[in-house]
Amino acid sequence: MAEESKSSLDALSALCKRRGFIYHSSEIYGGMPGFWDYGPLGSELKQNVKQAWWQFTVRGREDVAGLDATIIMHPKIWKASGHLDTFADPMTMCKDCKKLMRADQIGDIYADQKKKPQPKAAGSDFFCPYCGGELTEPKPFNLMFKTVVGPIDDPSNVAYLRPETAQAIFAQFTNVVSTSRFAVPFGIAQMGKSFRNEVTPRNYTFRSREFEQMELEFFIRPDEAVEILHGHVVTLADRPNLDGPVQDDWGWEVWHKYWVEQRKKFLNAVGLPTERFVEYWQKPDELAHYARACVDIEYDFPFGRQELEGIAARGDFDLTQHQKHSGVSQMVFDDPLKQAAKKMDEAARKAFVEKVQADWVARGRDAVAAEKFCLGLFEGKYVPHVIEPSAGVDRLMLALLCEAYEEQQLKDDKGKDDVRTVLHFHPKVAPVKAAVFPLIKKDEAQYRFARGLFEKLRKRFNVQWDVSGAIGRRYRRQDEAGTPWCITVDEQTTKDGTFTVRDRDSMEQKRMTTAEFLAMAEEALEF
Amino acid sequence: MAEESKSSLDALSALCKRRGFIYHSSEIYGGMPGFWDYGPLGSELKQNVKQAWWQFTVRGREDVAGLDATIIMHPKIWKASGHLDTFADPMTMCKDCKKLMRADQIGDIYADQKKKPQPKAAGSDFFCPYCGGELTEPKPFNLMFKTVVGPIDDPSNVAYLRPETAQAIFAQFTNVVSTSRFAVPFGIAQMGKSFRNEVTPRNYTFRSREFEQMELEFFIRPDEAVEILHGHVVTLADRPNLDGPVQDDWGWEVWHKYWVEQRKKFLNAVGLPTERFVEYWQKPDELAHYARACVDIEYDFPFGRQELEGIAARGDFDLTQHQKHSGVSQMVFDDPLKQAAKKMDEAARKAFVEKVQADWVARGRDAVAAEKFCLGLFEGKYVPHVIEPSAGVDRLMLALLCEAYEEQQLKDDKGKDDVRTVLHFHPKVAPVKAAVFPLIKKDEAQYRFARGLFEKLRKRFNVQWDVSGAIGRRYRRQDEAGTPWCITVDEQTTKDGTFTVRDRDSMEQKRMTTAEFLAMAEEALEF
Repeated sequence: MAEESKSSLDALSALCKRRGFIYHSSEIYGGMPGFWDYGPLGSELKQNVKQAWWQFTVRGREDVAGLDATIIMHPKIWKASGHLDTFADPMTMCKDCKKLMRADQIGDIYADQKKKPQPKAAGSDFFCPYCGGELTEPKPFNLMFKTVVGPIDDPSNVAYLRPETAQAIFAQFTNVVSTSRFAVPFGIAQMGKSFRNEVTPRNYTFRSREFEQMELEFFIRPDEAVEILHGHVVTLADRPNLDGPVQDDWGWEVWHKYWVEQRKKFLNAVGLPTERFVEYWQKPDELAHYARACVDIEYDFPFGRQELEGIAARGDFDLTQHQKHSGVSQMVFDDPLKQAAKKMDEAARKAFVEKVQADWVARGRDAVAAEKFCLGLFEGKYVPHVIEPSAGVDRLMLALLCEAYEEQQLKDDKGKDDVRTVLHFHPKVAPVKAAVFPLIKKDEAQYRFARGLFEKLRKRFNVQWDVSGAIGRRYRRQDEAGTPWCITVDEQTTKDGTFTVRDRDSMEQKRMTTAEFLAMAEEALEF
Repeated sequence: MAEESKSSLDALSALCKRRGFIYHSSEIYGGMPGFWDYGPLGSELKQNVKQAWWQFTVRGREDVAGLDATIIMHPKIWKASGHLDTFADPMTMCKDCKKLMRADQIGDIYADQKKKPQPKAAGSDFFCPYCGGELTEPKPFNLMFKTVVGPIDDPSNVAYLRPETAQAIFAQFTNVVSTSRFAVPFGIAQMGKSFRNEVTPRNYTFRSREFEQMELEFFIRPDEAVEILHGHVVTLADRPNLDGPVQDDWGWEVWHKYWVEQRKKFLNAVGLPTERFVEYWQKPDELAHYARACVDIEYDFPFGRQELEGIAARGDFDLTQHQKHSGVSQMVFDDPLKQAAKKMDEAARKAFVEKVQADWVARGRDAVAAEKFCLGLFEGKYVPHVIEPSAGVDRLMLALLCEAYEEQQLKDDKGKDDVRTVLHFHPKVAPVKAAVFPLIKKDEAQYRFARGLFEKLRKRFNVQWDVSGAIGRRYRRQDEAGTPWCITVDEQTTKDGTFTVRDRDSMEQKRMTTAEFLAMAEEALEF
């Protein structure tokens, strides 16, 4: 990490502690590595981020349903998903100092610790970055936290804390389909805690052992079903309009790109401008075997460019795995598809099957399976494919904090150098939306007006009341909390009902009435 | 459980499944006893309950700060809190059928299973309610879920999933005090998951192994500090006004009763009328040794009267325990107290110490400790006392569902018997606030108006759009979801801009303009 970036992260984390955004978990007991708590301002920021995601992803759409599932689920889910067998990091230990570390992070540890003793053989991954000792061969270490459910401590009762929220969505797919009025294409969204027993948690809250996710599984028709329904499948080469309403003839490629664009819109809406993140399209050899495409949205954190969220096209892998392991069909019945297939004659069906077989074989899949799949489609039945936009609450919060943080060099009234620490949060996520100050608290008319305004505003959003100290100091306190608007009630207020609204970023003041302020604030806060 | 109550719970749980409120966790894998998931409507209901609590408890007050801490915390926290040593249920096993059960629940199991084989010796707790076999002596079983943090599976790395959210608040007390501008009296509130490895989870979602809590720790001055500051301590005998603003001279007893009243107000605000719950004041011999008072708010669930939430006056027990176990002082500095103590002369101080000593000794405590405590107070220092209102999200949701559920016997248009299933949720917690229907969807003007209204409303709250089936059927669908208002756009709408708003409970329709509807809805939704 560059020294400058490191010091900016240090300054930010100091502010986060000082102003009650982020604390070490269990700090009075020496802390817990990889666990972080959100304080008074942090817990508000977190709720705002989550509510914004929910509004954008669930309530603001007609094709997404919500879910809130448990953290401890049936262990077979992790067998089906592959986590039990393959969700592991390579771990190595120093034979001398006995420190454990991730074999794939040794380079980063060297980079972080410039001032520490150099290894015996500089640059080699095979010497301990702490003491220079010899390291053991890397061994896989499963990252799921284990526990035992029920009173009998027996291997048959072992369960896991979920390492992702996504699998609960797949596990409840059939329930949501049969108890809601949603039909494919539609999505199921969930927010909640996930746990990964990271060997070396690092980079502040970025890679924690306990964290929160916001995941959407958006289920779509297989392209072959779209082909039957519409006689064609829209691909990106057709330059579809991704800004308008979604279309029934889109193929997976378009749906995937649509969700990349939606996620970028969301990030913009909560205050990350497009030019501040990078869209990284994974190369074919980087993709998981079942994935058709995966985009990482990356952000330049002070500790390097890192994934903020990912949007993966996962085919029918997950539902098919759960179908196999649970024995419960994950197929949907798609009546319009069945009706469309009815209109195909024998020759058309045969040609269709042959085309699909050729396509599947070219992608290294089985011709017999392709035929079976086609016969299912003709009956209106298939296992849906899925596009998965997956975001981390904590890393988005950290990006928003990094993006918002500024130490501004100013001149004070007397021309002296002055530093203003400010968090330029978008109003939608700002922990406190507005602060209300009576200019002179002993002036009864000012106090009464300010108090009435405060009471009115706080029914709509989070507002603070502050009567202590000079106005300048009250402004600075709110700047550090990232409050977009400071309202000062002064003598003129008591005459004409207008007050000053000081903008956090420009520091300019404008006189407004209550109605004008509310209209301005509600526009800024609306999705 | 009475047959009638059992059948009403069965009908409710069937509705909850059918309409996507509540599913068994991991159902396709055979389920996980004691774990429940919330579906599309349930997850909305849950969010509404939590947001209502947060608005009422945190954002709507100036003396409560929020916190969002981790589920896995330092294991010493559970040593300090007493959970490691005493948070256990008595467990017994049948020597014949090997079933495990809670020794204190055997009576209930008998009651539940009227039709099952009777025990060898009827009425005895010591025979198995399942097979009549002999039971083992009860043994304590700790209810905390265990896990291991980090890559080394070693007793020194054992940690626990929190069995309550409260302890995180105590563990972060000093951080919140030093990084926020709060001074005693003030509270810290937290919502989040907790885990208890119940031996026999039962009663639908009421006693689950994974559940969510909403807890407030409200820190107050010890009565002795209030005495120094004000020369008196207000008690309940003084008949203080608990509806007005809080007062600086209240003693713990008044604060405790104040929070009981606040919690009842909250329950009223989300739709539980006061006459539907019972305030149970624990008797002195039922109280934990450190507790001064505890009130359970109980609700008549179909499976019996059970605790919905509790409000406990816990003295300084928790912070004192953490002070002892962490070695970090949990004292606050209270400047007004120090200033007040400064004004006491030597004789007044001596008299004060003697009075406190006499009082402490009468309550079985130590005279030397009492003196030390008084000397601290004279310096403005003390460990705050705490009032703890503690509520469960899931059991409140279950109470709201039970309360809302009705199968109404009606006559249809032709005078035939008809049953209407309806959830009478308060609008504040209803998963869907309004549904918008164009009466004739093919009428372009109706469709356009309805769609515009829908788009407008959904920026403010959760709204559904429904164009399928007769209006009567659309109403019934919304009745089952508990939607308070159904809006139908008809021919007249396109002429004068008014539409019908059908009230879920009275089934009456009223014509309103958009502005009238918004004013009505916002008033009902506002806290």
